[in-house]
Amino acid sequence: MTWMHSEILEQPHVVAKIFDRESSRAAAIGERLRSKSFRSCVFVARGSSDHAAIFGRYLVESFCGIPTALAAPSIATLYRRGVDLSGSVAIGVSQSGRSADVVEYLRRARRWGAWALAVTNDPHSPLAEAAQDVLLCHAGVERSVAATKTFTAQLACLYLLASAWAGGSIQKRLLRAFADVPRLLRAALRCEQRIAEAARRIGDADRCVVLARGFSFPIALETALKMQEAAGMPAQGASAADFLHGPVAGVGEGDCVLALAPAGPGLPSLRRAAARIRRAGAELVAFGSDAALLRLADNRVRLAAGPEPVSALPMAVCGQLVAYHLARFKGANPDRPRGLRKVTKTW
Amino acid sequence: MTWMHSEILEQPHVVAKIFDRESSRAAAIGERLRSKSFRSCVFVARGSSDHAAIFGRYLVESFCGIPTALAAPSIATLYRRGVDLSGSVAIGVSQSGRSADVVEYLRRARRWGAWALAVTNDPHSPLAEAAQDVLLCHAGVERSVAATKTFTAQLACLYLLASAWAGGSIQKRLLRAFADVPRLLRAALRCEQRIAEAARRIGDADRCVVLARGFSFPIALETALKMQEAAGMPAQGASAADFLHGPVAGVGEGDCVLALAPAGPGLPSLRRAAARIRRAGAELVAFGSDAALLRLADNRVRLAAGPEPVSALPMAVCGQLVAYHLARFKGANPDRPRGLRKVTKTW
Repeated sequence: MTWMHSEILEQPHVVAKIFDRESSRAAAIGERLRSKSFRSCVFVARGSSDHAAIFGRYLVESFCGIPTALAAPSIATLYRRGVDLSGSVAIGVSQSGRSADVVEYLRRARRWGAWALAVTNDPHSPLAEAAQDVLLCHAGVERSVAATKTFTAQLACLYLLASAWAGGSIQKRLLRAFADVPRLLRAALRCEQRIAEAARRIGDADRCVVLARGFSFPIALETALKMQEAAGMPAQGASAADFLHGPVAGVGEGDCVLALAPAGPGLPSLRRAAARIRRAGAELVAFGSDAALLRLADNRVRLAAGPEPVSALPMAVCGQLVAYHLARFKGANPDRPRGLRKVTKTW
Repeated sequence: MTWMHSEILEQPHVVAKIFDRESSRAAAIGERLRSKSFRSCVFVARGSSDHAAIFGRYLVESFCGIPTALAAPSIATLYRRGVDLSGSVAIGVSQSGRSADVVEYLRRARRWGAWALAVTNDPHSPLAEAAQDVLLCHAGVERSVAATKTFTAQLACLYLLASAWAGGSIQKRLLRAFADVPRLLRAALRCEQRIAEAARRIGDADRCVVLARGFSFPIALETALKMQEAAGMPAQGASAADFLHGPVAGVGEGDCVLALAPAGPGLPSLRRAAARIRRAGAELVAFGSDAALLRLADNRVRLAAGPEPVSALPMAVCGQLVAYHLARFKGANPDRPRGLRKVTKTW
């Protein structure tokens, strides 16, 4: 048993804990954000946390109507320029709260006029100290270098935050859907056997492209990153829309495409991409609930359909299980990937 | 002779034409933007144009101090949500001006209160019609499916726009540097023989990771996309900072890393990444002017040093030449990549 695997299994519990412990804090932050009429939002993060931030961005734009950016930390750390962030909320996302450039950007964002928020697993971290409000991930210690439960916890925290910021009937609807997440995660974990078979199929390929759209697009990026980290598998995440703008030309026999396709308005675009992939002679593995898409695939994992934003969380768990089984299949130790440390110091 | 190659060679001329024909229009737009005190900026684009937009984002944040986002077009096209863009500038970037979701997003952005700008090669395109101000790429007809001269033209237009928006002494300094770009592009084209040798080295690898930071980061993404499009080469662009957060674990013998390293504050981070890559046993190809970094490489192309934002343009040309020679080396037709069309219709 590896740490990575046992940490994957903890996730229904972690998400339930966040719902219990952070809901009222998120509600208070949401009320504060609404009362201050912020006009824009910027996320700052690196690596897996950056993928959680992309999920947060879709939530904040869709449900709060607030234009949202992903920060380029180097604007602050390398180029040392100032950006006018008055009227903005800056949200730093880092499980350790110790990514040097993320901490530095949040500190500067506050100086530049932003309201500074942190989403982190460590309430005593420099990131938490730099922030005016903190949401905690309650994931416990994460021993595997490959982030799993802290990533899903970040998704959950950002979901609670965006719900609270939206307020009113949207908040009610989003929270009702969220209450179902631990059950959806347990359902995803019960698919492990099928996912392990899919992982073996992927492991036979020269490389893997992971496709999704909308709320699941960051999960495609994260799944590809996890495959690289844990199993050393050449993998690349992409939006199914951008994929048809070029990368599709590089896909052919010997490649495998993993389509993450929960129910939602992105499905037609994934079906189109899937048909192209089949014509190109690549293997297709599909996770989702859409019968038409699953039929196109060489290997499929049928998942329970749920409201689209929350279905990103069980999809993330499926992606982690793929990476874990891929690592086992390739004889890699997913807990200690070659050349990686838990906290990455970049500047 | 392919279209792609002859279009690559046209670029010093295209950029000089933009400087002649669009400078006064850009200056007028810049003055208007300054007078309206916009507080934020959002770019909307797909594929190569999205990479040009990332370059634009670094420029607008660094030199105008305006927080800037890359739009997620699906917020408008798939989820049909509204975002409050009053006080914002929305900039649509598309060479054809016909990318359906980019056009739709710009139309909606205007309805949501944004000032709508278009950067396009076609003044009669739907994108130009949807915009209140237009900057033209003056690239002429681009026959190769792989965008080259229209991409560099977008970089040039966005550079002029950001310079004009910044105004004052920054504008003067940026324009002085820009006047040198045609010469820098010609110098890059003169390196073609060395670049072709580098491309053969890359073509021997199983896959290629293209690394850069800051203003050249979007050039890394574009170079990797071009390699995939034109030569079907498995390639992936990444920020040298993000690369150390995970993807480095998947790099080893049989892989090749191409480091795009112009002079600038990102160099130390590229040197660190380069040292790690060598230890992992991957091939390293480096383009730039830094002796220490070039020494680490198995294959190197020494480029003239220039001010960092403008050096992204010759670096883009070098990346295009890599993709072109990689295609020849692999026997692919770079003008008609498998399964791609010039205008991609995504929604």
